[in-house]
Amino acid sequence: MRITGRSGFAAWPATILVAFALAVLPSLFADEGMWTFDNPPTKILQERYGFTPTREWLDHVRLSSARFNDGGSGSFVSPHGLVLTNHHVALGQLQKVSTPQKDYVADGFLAKTQAEELKCPDLEVDVMISSEDVTAKVLGSVKAGMSDADALKARKAEIASVERESLEATGLRSDVTSLYDGGQYWLYRYKKYTDLRLVFAPEQQIAFFGGDPDNFTYPRYDLDLALFRVYENDKPIESPNYLKWSAHGSAAGDLVFVSGNPGSTSRLETMAEVEFDRDNYLPLRLKVLERRVAVLQKYSEQGPEQARQALNQIFGLQNSIKVFKGQIEGLQRKDLIAARQKQEDDFRARVDANPAWKKEYGDAWGEIAKAEAESATRLKQNFFWSLSASPMASRALAIVQYVAEVKKPDGERLDGFHDSELDSLRFRLLSPAPAYPKMEQALLADALHEALEELGLNDPFVKTVLQGRTPEETVQALFKNTQMADPAFRKSLLEGGEPAVASSTDSMVELARRVDPLNRELHKWNDDHVESVVTPAFERLGKARFAVYGTSTYPDATFTLRLAFGTVKGYPMNGTVAPPFTTFYGLYDRSDGFADKPPFDLPQRYVDGQNKIDLATPFNFVNTCDITGGNSGSPVINRAGELVGLIFDGNIESLIIDYMYDEATARAVAVDSRAMIEAMRNLYGAGAIVEEIQGKASPQ
Amino acid sequence: MRITGRSGFAAWPATILVAFALAVLPSLFADEGMWTFDNPPTKILQERYGFTPTREWLDHVRLSSARFNDGGSGSFVSPHGLVLTNHHVALGQLQKVSTPQKDYVADGFLAKTQAEELKCPDLEVDVMISSEDVTAKVLGSVKAGMSDADALKARKAEIASVERESLEATGLRSDVTSLYDGGQYWLYRYKKYTDLRLVFAPEQQIAFFGGDPDNFTYPRYDLDLALFRVYENDKPIESPNYLKWSAHGSAAGDLVFVSGNPGSTSRLETMAEVEFDRDNYLPLRLKVLERRVAVLQKYSEQGPEQARQALNQIFGLQNSIKVFKGQIEGLQRKDLIAARQKQEDDFRARVDANPAWKKEYGDAWGEIAKAEAESATRLKQNFFWSLSASPMASRALAIVQYVAEVKKPDGERLDGFHDSELDSLRFRLLSPAPAYPKMEQALLADALHEALEELGLNDPFVKTVLQGRTPEETVQALFKNTQMADPAFRKSLLEGGEPAVASSTDSMVELARRVDPLNRELHKWNDDHVESVVTPAFERLGKARFAVYGTSTYPDATFTLRLAFGTVKGYPMNGTVAPPFTTFYGLYDRSDGFADKPPFDLPQRYVDGQNKIDLATPFNFVNTCDITGGNSGSPVINRAGELVGLIFDGNIESLIIDYMYDEATARAVAVDSRAMIEAMRNLYGAGAIVEEIQGKASPQ
Repeated sequence: MRITGRSGFAAWPATILVAFALAVLPSLFADEGMWTFDNPPTKILQERYGFTPTREWLDHVRLSSARFNDGGSGSFVSPHGLVLTNHHVALGQLQKVSTPQKDYVADGFLAKTQAEELKCPDLEVDVMISSEDVTAKVLGSVKAGMSDADALKARKAEIASVERESLEATGLRSDVTSLYDGGQYWLYRYKKYTDLRLVFAPEQQIAFFGGDPDNFTYPRYDLDLALFRVYENDKPIESPNYLKWSAHGSAAGDLVFVSGNPGSTSRLETMAEVEFDRDNYLPLRLKVLERRVAVLQKYSEQGPEQARQALNQIFGLQNSIKVFKGQIEGLQRKDLIAARQKQEDDFRARVDANPAWKKEYGDAWGEIAKAEAESATRLKQNFFWSLSASPMASRALAIVQYVAEVKKPDGERLDGFHDSELDSLRFRLLSPAPAYPKMEQALLADALHEALEELGLNDPFVKTVLQGRTPEETVQALFKNTQMADPAFRKSLLEGGEPAVASSTDSMVELARRVDPLNRELHKWNDDHVESVVTPAFERLGKARFAVYGTSTYPDATFTLRLAFGTVKGYPMNGTVAPPFTTFYGLYDRSDGFADKPPFDLPQRYVDGQNKIDLATPFNFVNTCDITGGNSGSPVINRAGELVGLIFDGNIESLIIDYMYDEATARAVAVDSRAMIEAMRNLYGAGAIVEEIQGKASPQ
Repeated sequence: MRITGRSGFAAWPATILVAFALAVLPSLFADEGMWTFDNPPTKILQERYGFTPTREWLDHVRLSSARFNDGGSGSFVSPHGLVLTNHHVALGQLQKVSTPQKDYVADGFLAKTQAEELKCPDLEVDVMISSEDVTAKVLGSVKAGMSDADALKARKAEIASVERESLEATGLRSDVTSLYDGGQYWLYRYKKYTDLRLVFAPEQQIAFFGGDPDNFTYPRYDLDLALFRVYENDKPIESPNYLKWSAHGSAAGDLVFVSGNPGSTSRLETMAEVEFDRDNYLPLRLKVLERRVAVLQKYSEQGPEQARQALNQIFGLQNSIKVFKGQIEGLQRKDLIAARQKQEDDFRARVDANPAWKKEYGDAWGEIAKAEAESATRLKQNFFWSLSASPMASRALAIVQYVAEVKKPDGERLDGFHDSELDSLRFRLLSPAPAYPKMEQALLADALHEALEELGLNDPFVKTVLQGRTPEETVQALFKNTQMADPAFRKSLLEGGEPAVASSTDSMVELARRVDPLNRELHKWNDDHVESVVTPAFERLGKARFAVYGTSTYPDATFTLRLAFGTVKGYPMNGTVAPPFTTFYGLYDRSDGFADKPPFDLPQRYVDGQNKIDLATPFNFVNTCDITGGNSGSPVINRAGELVGLIFDGNIESLIIDYMYDEATARAVAVDSRAMIEAMRNLYGAGAIVEEIQGKASPQ
């Protein structure tokens, strides 16, 4: 595991797999790479495909791409702010706008006019406007003779300052991202949109046809799409930055691109970290997730409304479980581990062969391994000192910290509370989305049981939270006397600041005040014992890699915008070959093959409407683009910069991709542009949207 | 490997995997077993499925089942002698009745009337009429104090005598088969049919849709069927022994049966043999087959007629290659090997725990291992002292041996030349099927190169065949001056007996006369050093198994009639689940997914006729029945004894099945009875046949 950023208090949404991951591959496979737009793989593209993207091409694609902060990607597909993403990226919002009476997840949604478009409670979408290399500034903040802890502080303060200055100067969301193991720091500026309205979503049954069994597999038959419209000042935005919709889609052998936000990869973790992931971190994480799914499934059994509430979380957890299982299995494959080991051996041998390099970089591996071992001593506390099972309780803790942090100088605050981050943070904390207290109670009670079992009765967190009570008693008391479900209450706390928080008798605020010191102690311990050691060590590894292999490569994923490229192509699968494309024929084949039993049952619309669509229409397809979680909703683009597909998954063979790309069998799975048109027009009566994305009409 | 029966001069057809395999499993998995009709699994069926097959049910199924001596199985499906089997079982005959002008393999065939039915040149089909336990007789022939070699001779003589007496008494083909590692010997009597006429075959393109890639995989979309009619005295036979065609097919969860002739299994080879197979025998066999395919592919490139000639053999070889690769990979799986080892350890521990058993059986493993090692010293000669690359040359050798053997007392003859076997042997030797001398030359030349490389210039066989010439010179001379392609010439030799053979100047007969002594020497060496040692050792293992585990089990497969049972059921596959059924929808999906590129292209009939068929018709399906090569063409039968499907393959997960059954993922793959009807009636205009098998009309 990348040993930073593993805290149970992680701020990123659970649906993407984020770590503070920074690395670079020494020798690239053919279609490998999640490239920054500042450093596109022009040489490889020219050599391999005879294609050179122009600066205009790159800018247009970048400005047409959108990051969904719920944990995915998307793209603009009309001049009137229409954004395409996956149904499963939209799932959280679909659930938040649904009610017990109207379930848009199950039934889908179509706005026949703009007036019917449905405002989302807490969705933020970012478009990357510009970027700037700030490596010299950030690294320059560290002065000779500083202790590790002081150096870390200085770096963090400088980053906060760069972000704040940019925000003040441009009004744009400004994030500094560490790339190439800290070999570079980049400032990314984003235009931020927070008024997103739902335009279209099909039934989850067809968006996620085949359910958990088919998830991460192929051949596939999923209409995993949703459309939002971006508003500003209560009007749709107008912009020339959108992708034209290809009428012809793609064909086997075509060069295609994916522009999106891969969440996190671990391509160049040291072998010590990889082995720790495989043997300790991933199995523990898997155990936690499996336990949580079990709680939610039990909760779902109470009735259809409970099932509706739990569906989105179950989806996300099962998704992660399948990933982690695949990763553990992949990391147990001797051939893969041997290949990774060889990469590291080669790298270290080259460093050791050069006396100057050896002196400067040679002990970085050892330091990382030591910090890894140190970090392992509090691994379980990092996992279980957590209130994340309850969003309400998590928000209470964030509010308690917010009011304390904002009073400090920006550079001294906890991560997540810097000036440049406050807007987005407040947007999340004040979300009007409905809370499901009964579900949260079930989850939190079980999480506390788990903490008790894993950490024991004498653990400070366990003692502080339970105060001698059972988890059930604790949770019951906690939810009896809280207003955290009410956004107005949260607002009053934020606005009331420290006095309001300090005097609050809300049970969740009280708990958060007790837990806050523990959280800070753990955070500081992580900084002092792990981050401050590994950050410079990784930086040296990053520099060593530049020295040894040059800079024509790509950094590990960081949920920032990247360009991947590849070929539409089948692959060897289970004794035969998987086809480049599937069609609507296959949807009916798979459904009938299971006698229409869930999760292979079809929405009634598909049963009745079979004769309205051309069954030969390409439905899903695969390509060799290098993607991972966070890329969901990314557009697949052809040479002409047109949209030919919509990424929604990787195949089962790609689950190891965070550790290693494998062109032979790893594939990105996408919805074909032709299928989206065919279904929207002929099954959903969404002809107006089709006209809009085909450039034939404006929205009504 | 089962170390007997591995000679390169093997008499069985190449398309089934035959070995002299006799064993029994100590602990059975749920749906495991290829049961003899004398010992059906009534207890398991009752316990697991609440079904008890009556004697009438069993007799009817047995008498409705047919063994295709080309290497497969089949079943009667009308009272007028109509027999159903696989297209790939019929393939050899289809090729033999085709000409450069009329290619029934590519184009398919339909007899609109009986008069148009097409007589096959050399197809023998057997129906098992009765069986008898002759263990006491066979074992009784071995007297105390006999040497191993004499005991083997006595056993063989007794078997020949039992077969001859039965043939004389009943006129039925009479074969003694060794079962349960020689724990039992059974006399099987068959009604033999040799006038088979082709009634219907679809295009190979649809029978083998997906080609070599999809072979042994699932989901699948193959119409792998062919229909013959059995004639006697130039008239179709009339018989009540046929399977009614189910109008409803089967459904997931249904109990089904397979009645057919599994060729060979190695379920209870000793571990020493299994490891030898994995590390030596199978890799060598694979190498030989791959080399042969390469020769045929090169030959095919010369033109369409050459491609037509080679197609059947390439199919068979690629099929075997995929099996052997799957077996080697399976045997490299530690979990499977550990499970096999555990079985053997358990068995040996139980034998050793009983002093009487230990004394009588305990050293059998050691003796087999010793014989195995001895056998390995001539493994390559057993492989490469062979003319099998050329059917013409092989026949010459068989004729040279025939005229010598038939003069001897029956009991002293070489295997394959006993009285009871002569009819079938002559039928094969006198086949009027066309020969392809150019193709045989290419194959034989390469085989001689291979022998030279593997055995060296000083090997007796190499010296004898080449006589100082190159393989090309040898083969050229051999084919220049031979009439072996002419059945009348072969007949004249058989009828002329030893004098005709001795005086023949035919180049192939001359070669056969030179090779004959070498073949006999190797045969005798195998008898003396291997067979005579392992036959009694296996017999003791067989007895030990009966002693330890009782007799409620099934013997290894021997290409004799067996009953398997199981459930229609999907299985976990490549991260998801495979469906119990596929449909015609899936055929079009898979074809379109590859843009109709071979081997995923469709016959024009399917492109044009899509609207004539109900695409939702179940096409192929999977079940847990325990089958292997030789079962191709077997009927799938429901509780009512009706035909619901037609076995044509196993999935990729089942390739290890000869060594080990695995209910979790191993599946038999079948064509659905409903798809056969749908296609024949609506795409092929074969309504008359459909009426006949549905019992609505007699053939015209």
